[in-house]
Amino acid sequence: MILRDPVHGLVAFESPEERIVVRLLATSEVQRLRRIRQLGVASLAYPGAEHTRFSHAIGTAHVMTLLLRRLRSLEHELPPHERLDADRGREAIAAAFLHDVGHGPFSHLYEEAVDGAPHHEEWTTRIVLDESSEVHRVLASESPELPRRVAELVRGRHELGYLARAVSGTLDVDRCDYLLRDAHATGVRYGSYDLDWLLRSLCFAPRTGDTAPPLAIDGAKGIVAVEHFVLARHFMFQQVYFHKATRAAEWMIRVVLARAARLCRAGEPPLSVPTAVACAATGREVALGDYLELDDGVLVGAMHAWESARDPVLADLSRRVRARALFKTLELRDDAPEAHDHALRTAREIAARSGLDPEAYVGLDVADDTPFDDADDPLAVVYPSGELRKPGDVSFLLGRLRGERLMRARLVFAPELRDAIVRAVDA
Amino acid sequence: MILRDPVHGLVAFESPEERIVVRLLATSEVQRLRRIRQLGVASLAYPGAEHTRFSHAIGTAHVMTLLLRRLRSLEHELPPHERLDADRGREAIAAAFLHDVGHGPFSHLYEEAVDGAPHHEEWTTRIVLDESSEVHRVLASESPELPRRVAELVRGRHELGYLARAVSGTLDVDRCDYLLRDAHATGVRYGSYDLDWLLRSLCFAPRTGDTAPPLAIDGAKGIVAVEHFVLARHFMFQQVYFHKATRAAEWMIRVVLARAARLCRAGEPPLSVPTAVACAATGREVALGDYLELDDGVLVGAMHAWESARDPVLADLSRRVRARALFKTLELRDDAPEAHDHALRTAREIAARSGLDPEAYVGLDVADDTPFDDADDPLAVVYPSGELRKPGDVSFLLGRLRGERLMRARLVFAPELRDAIVRAVDA
Amino acid sequence: MILRDPVHGLVAFESPEERIVVRLLATSEVQRLRRIRQLGVASLAYPGAEHTRFSHAIGTAHVMTLLLRRLRSLEHELPPHERLDADRGREAIAAAFLHDVGHGPFSHLYEEAVDGAPHHEEWTTRIVLDESSEVHRVLASESPELPRRVAELVRGRHELGYLARAVSGTLDVDRCDYLLRDAHATGVRYGSYDLDWLLRSLCFAPRTGDTAPPLAIDGAKGIVAVEHFVLARHFMFQQVYFHKATRAAEWMIRVVLARAARLCRAGEPPLSVPTAVACAATGREVALGDYLELDDGVLVGAMHAWESARDPVLADLSRRVRARALFKTLELRDDAPEAHDHALRTAREIAARSGLDPEAYVGLDVADDTPFDDADDPLAVVYPSGELRKPGDVSFLLGRLRGERLMRARLVFAPELRDAIVRAVDA
Amino acid sequence: MILRDPVHGLVAFESPEERIVVRLLATSEVQRLRRIRQLGVASLAYPGAEHTRFSHAIGTAHVMTLLLRRLRSLEHELPPHERLDADRGREAIAAAFLHDVGHGPFSHLYEEAVDGAPHHEEWTTRIVLDESSEVHRVLASESPELPRRVAELVRGRHELGYLARAVSGTLDVDRCDYLLRDAHATGVRYGSYDLDWLLRSLCFAPRTGDTAPPLAIDGAKGIVAVEHFVLARHFMFQQVYFHKATRAAEWMIRVVLARAARLCRAGEPPLSVPTAVACAATGREVALGDYLELDDGVLVGAMHAWESARDPVLADLSRRVRARALFKTLELRDDAPEAHDHALRTAREIAARSGLDPEAYVGLDVADDTPFDDADDPLAVVYPSGELRKPGDVSFLLGRLRGERLMRARLVFAPELRDAIVRAVDA
Repeated sequence: MILRDPVHGLVAFESPEERIVVRLLATSEVQRLRRIRQLGVASLAYPGAEHTRFSHAIGTAHVMTLLLRRLRSLEHELPPHERLDADRGREAIAAAFLHDVGHGPFSHLYEEAVDGAPHHEEWTTRIVLDESSEVHRVLASESPELPRRVAELVRGRHELGYLARAVSGTLDVDRCDYLLRDAHATGVRYGSYDLDWLLRSLCFAPRTGDTAPPLAIDGAKGIVAVEHFVLARHFMFQQVYFHKATRAAEWMIRVVLARAARLCRAGEPPLSVPTAVACAATGREVALGDYLELDDGVLVGAMHAWESARDPVLADLSRRVRARALFKTLELRDDAPEAHDHALRTAREIAARSGLDPEAYVGLDVADDTPFDDADDPLAVVYPSGELRKPGDVSFLLGRLRGERLMRARLVFAPELRDAIVRAVDA
Repeated sequence: MILRDPVHGLVAFESPEERIVVRLLATSEVQRLRRIRQLGVASLAYPGAEHTRFSHAIGTAHVMTLLLRRLRSLEHELPPHERLDADRGREAIAAAFLHDVGHGPFSHLYEEAVDGAPHHEEWTTRIVLDESSEVHRVLASESPELPRRVAELVRGRHELGYLARAVSGTLDVDRCDYLLRDAHATGVRYGSYDLDWLLRSLCFAPRTGDTAPPLAIDGAKGIVAVEHFVLARHFMFQQVYFHKATRAAEWMIRVVLARAARLCRAGEPPLSVPTAVACAATGREVALGDYLELDDGVLVGAMHAWESARDPVLADLSRRVRARALFKTLELRDDAPEAHDHALRTAREIAARSGLDPEAYVGLDVADDTPFDDADDPLAVVYPSGELRKPGDVSFLLGRLRGERLMRARLVFAPELRDAIVRAVDA
Repeated sequence: MILRDPVHGLVAFESPEERIVVRLLATSEVQRLRRIRQLGVASLAYPGAEHTRFSHAIGTAHVMTLLLRRLRSLEHELPPHERLDADRGREAIAAAFLHDVGHGPFSHLYEEAVDGAPHHEEWTTRIVLDESSEVHRVLASESPELPRRVAELVRGRHELGYLARAVSGTLDVDRCDYLLRDAHATGVRYGSYDLDWLLRSLCFAPRTGDTAPPLAIDGAKGIVAVEHFVLARHFMFQQVYFHKATRAAEWMIRVVLARAARLCRAGEPPLSVPTAVACAATGREVALGDYLELDDGVLVGAMHAWESARDPVLADLSRRVRARALFKTLELRDDAPEAHDHALRTAREIAARSGLDPEAYVGLDVADDTPFDDADDPLAVVYPSGELRKPGDVSFLLGRLRGERLMRARLVFAPELRDAIVRAVDA
Repeated sequence: MILRDPVHGLVAFESPEERIVVRLLATSEVQRLRRIRQLGVASLAYPGAEHTRFSHAIGTAHVMTLLLRRLRSLEHELPPHERLDADRGREAIAAAFLHDVGHGPFSHLYEEAVDGAPHHEEWTTRIVLDESSEVHRVLASESPELPRRVAELVRGRHELGYLARAVSGTLDVDRCDYLLRDAHATGVRYGSYDLDWLLRSLCFAPRTGDTAPPLAIDGAKGIVAVEHFVLARHFMFQQVYFHKATRAAEWMIRVVLARAARLCRAGEPPLSVPTAVACAATGREVALGDYLELDDGVLVGAMHAWESARDPVLADLSRRVRARALFKTLELRDDAPEAHDHALRTAREIAARSGLDPEAYVGLDVADDTPFDDADDPLAVVYPSGELRKPGDVSFLLGRLRGERLMRARLVFAPELRDAIVRAVDA
């Protein structure tokens, strides 16, 4: 199978170990990812951001094939039993392809909004291991061991140290793909980095025991690629993932879902509530099939139905989301939690005085990220001499960013409260 | 308003005449375009092709601002009353932005599938002129004339000859945007061309009467830009718009919709059929509000519901579409209509013998395009001497493509019929 | 060795067979290519076109490594003795790297201007085979056979059919690199094409005898890549290689060199004439060392010295070239040779009447190219069934371009003659 | 005039104020820039880096036209006498185009190597003001004031505050072009940034007195563009401008030129020494005409001649440079000057013991740069409220880089000394 990818150009899955992708692609669980956008509601701020987790899954598997090629060009440094045979290649590619298969609608929103809903990682594991899933059947038909090994690798566990963090780590194939893909789709060019150079900069760390060594960075040529990757990721956080319109929309949808869940618990479920939401809300176990029915379109459809719900808050917020009548934000300059609490209290009092439900119409949204830290990260820079150093010790840029935390705290509120809140809150 | 566009980079609507875009953007009719993909089901073949008519509308308005800038740099050649004052600039930008506002779900599919459904151009006119639409209200609030003038310009009618074909013509702003946008989203790089150079190559044709002259191509520098544009468009047809998987999926959805319409007419409407579909199918007039309820998600939702319809064909085809179990195709080499008919008849007999409804499980799909023709096209090449020539007379490439017709005829059929059909049909 | 290339990004020569590039790179014959621009005087029309044959040599070797990777992914189709072992890989890469090592200054100009000067292909052969060259010593130190085998392969001779035309053929690695590189440097975006897709579209033709099969095009996916490649090349001819300013400057430099040669033959060599030029002009054999002394800078230096030559034509034309006071051109619409002759005669009479040497101040420049022809080209399209067809028979575009010849005939003359010539010559 | 630029695409100088570029382009002083590479010897490390100061001059003038367009879209904020009339536009474009016209060969090398040689800025002023230059005549023919005003603006002096630093400042048009151009030519993608967004992020600072305000950064949208610009510049320093091979080659050429100058002073000038070098070396004033004779080719030619000079050091180093037999480097980790001195002393002793001239065969090269500092920089960030803040106070990244200094200290030495020096010097 070869296909065109807007990010990577020609993408081919043709070798025996790569063909697992072709089989997995045909499963309904993977096809479902076509209906889940990679960036949730970010298209409200960036009209181009309509790309799906399906194309990201393909891109991630492709990056894994590139990584495997790099690793194999170096594997003469390893004893034969630590090399990437075709079985390990296949499981690495399958894990990369399936790493997000359990994702719920609107990216991370669903699992955050509904109390008690399991994280998407758990759903991924379940889809891979559940004998009723098509994904499971494809994997198991290749090798009985494969489902378990793929599930482990997705969680970062593998006997080859250098593979373990390749699916989930500072420089993993997931990030490698999504940064480029999100940059391509949003048009935020800052998020682009040089993938070829980054892959070429990876090498094996010196062996320290009986096990296969982890990945490391080639000190002679590689640091700049890592610096650029870290900065690209930072720019994407600043410009896209922390964008005020996106964050406001996410906050609104979380309120909508939480409200629907509460109505379910109160025995008054709104019309068209998806079974999975109703079950999660009321503490019943969610059947895999019901979970897989969820996608962006199903939730959009539900919210469209809720525009005429009896609960006035549910109806109003659903209407606003669909009409893109987004809440406004006010950035808080003071980073102290007490300052945040104070601002939130003040703003909610204003809402209450205006006759609006304070919990539904005013919120506090705190986004934060540490662009780079190597304190607990095993990723090391290796020099030709064998010397190992921490990236932050050898990089001018990373040394200055190490451990630094970027925080964006904002009040989120209905537009009609704006003047009063801006006047009252000292931001 | 400034925003990032993945195709054009920085897009700004800041001047007084451009601000109409900001107001129109907030209308529900325009926001609906977020829910209609530009390329319909092409994402089944090109996973990146998830971009919407909303981003295309923004891009088209942006290209119009670029075109206006080019025209104004030349307007000293025109008498004052033929120049682009701010009113004309505003109507040009509004027309570019709204040119597709009446589009139905799945691109052109909807209007083709449901007998008697009006074309999207008619819906565009209706949305612009209907006093109940938000779009109309925004336009009319700027100037009572504006709705009518915008509706006319969308249809290619304007007192300034050079504007008339700028929204709808060989080199119109619609095509200028969608070629680049479709190329960007699909990853088919051949579809890219040099927009800056194309715009720079436009000029006014010499005056021939009392009216403002039409656009022409600057002979000294511009031909190559037109050649490249024509070829980019041709490559997109060949690679994307005529792609066999896309065409097969479109054929299937047309059958599904036609089937649902027939059931409506038979008085047995399937569950969840959208009101607009039911009305169109039964010859009742479709209310504007009902039409605007339609979008990709609504039709996907309907087809999901129809998976359990009582009509077995409707249920089966709906299931196949959602699971991406697409029909196969067989390309017919002989272009003669009789050969097509013969092949179709043969294949349908095979379906009938297999117990499958021949009309629903076998079809003929003929796609054709004439990449370039200047026989009836007023677009001329102008030389510094004032001499006018036809593009095909001065361009090596266009001269050789002029009037040539590309045709792709294919049988479309359920995969289980493949072997029998391939054996029986001499392709 | 890894390095950054503006066209291909990361370029690496790290495997054992690739390391020949690192050794060859250090030779003085290869380093000399740094002083020869790829496009000669095209930078007079395209200020960015300063790239050298050195970077093109690296790029060509890189494309060969990509081609080898593609071929090896398919070589299970071949018997072992027809596969690419490391020796053949090394000779393929060396041939790609050295294919232009014999090039003279200003691209093809030098060999055209000086009567009897051998073609650059002969110099390439000589450099590779001459035991005194550093290139020869590097090759021979790897294997005594290597110089001869490389020299043969550069000329398109190899026992593996699929390699024979890979260095010199319709889709050879030379063209693959220079089209992209020239497009990158000039900014003529039309010259870009999708190299990854083109490489992927190559396959082996079916075997027809005892020898390894030639390359062919994969009919299922590859035609569009070839179409795009052919068109990219055509656009580069039209826009860059046939550009009137470049052609005029080339014509002037040819006159300057021919004039200097004539003075040498007349026993009155101008100052600073390079030994190689003096020898070639007077029919003496040119020593390899003298030839290798030639580069763009040496000829520019000579022309700078000739600005004060006693011969007035040599002095005047040298001055004009350096000051970029280029001759003008008049395109002749009639393609008939008699029309060309007539126009040339008319224009030269005008020059004579103006007291200018007609041969030096007026010329006829005819450039022509056939963008595509498959009449004598063995390159075939292969279908999964094994069927072979000619590209022009299966491609809409190539079928319409096949055998068509693009010709640009121009008079070239000193600017002071322009008005008179334009008036007199009916173009 | 329109032309294709590999960095900016379509570049047009067509409006009355832009046409000054067309006239200046034809002068011999500007044409000379075709013979001076933008990055000196960096092509030894980056084979693509052959671009010239000529194309940079065009690009800088183009960026100025873009900046003028941005400024004019805002000038309703200014009183009429502070706006950009056509005269000011013309002088801004001319200053941008000519800002480097006085540059000597090999970029900054020439002026650093020859004691007492004036800086290129002085030569620029002289070329613009000297009545004998073609540049002066073109400017003066437009307006008698123009030469002086252009010379002033190149030095950052203008009555409009916002223009003063646009030719020479943190975000000047010179940097805007060269970062992109160097990134394009070297293939170091990290050096790219979003020029459109940067220009859009510029605005006027609030007025503080009677004079036109300086440029500022729009706080709402602009900081990210500045961050990205600062980082792009930093990456170019790290990867290209501080590259060890480039720095080693530059050190060698400086030694060669200094040696030639010393021989001139000693009354034993080497063969072919350019007049300008001989004059500068012996303290005589350099005539403008002699300075303008200098270019890369002339110095390369001189070094080629010096390969057979009697002075053995001059001959040996000239030979090495041409053959690209570059000196090696050893990076010193300790930044203290005493450590540097100690290392240099140690290495030079080794050279002396090996019979090599210590001053010529061993050197210390210290490169340093402060990527960002706003301590003394008037560039401010402006908020809609009118509030002004320093970039480092509002930007997460810039705040962490502010005032931080990157230093690269290296020993440079002949390769034959490498082992001994690496052993002896504790780096």
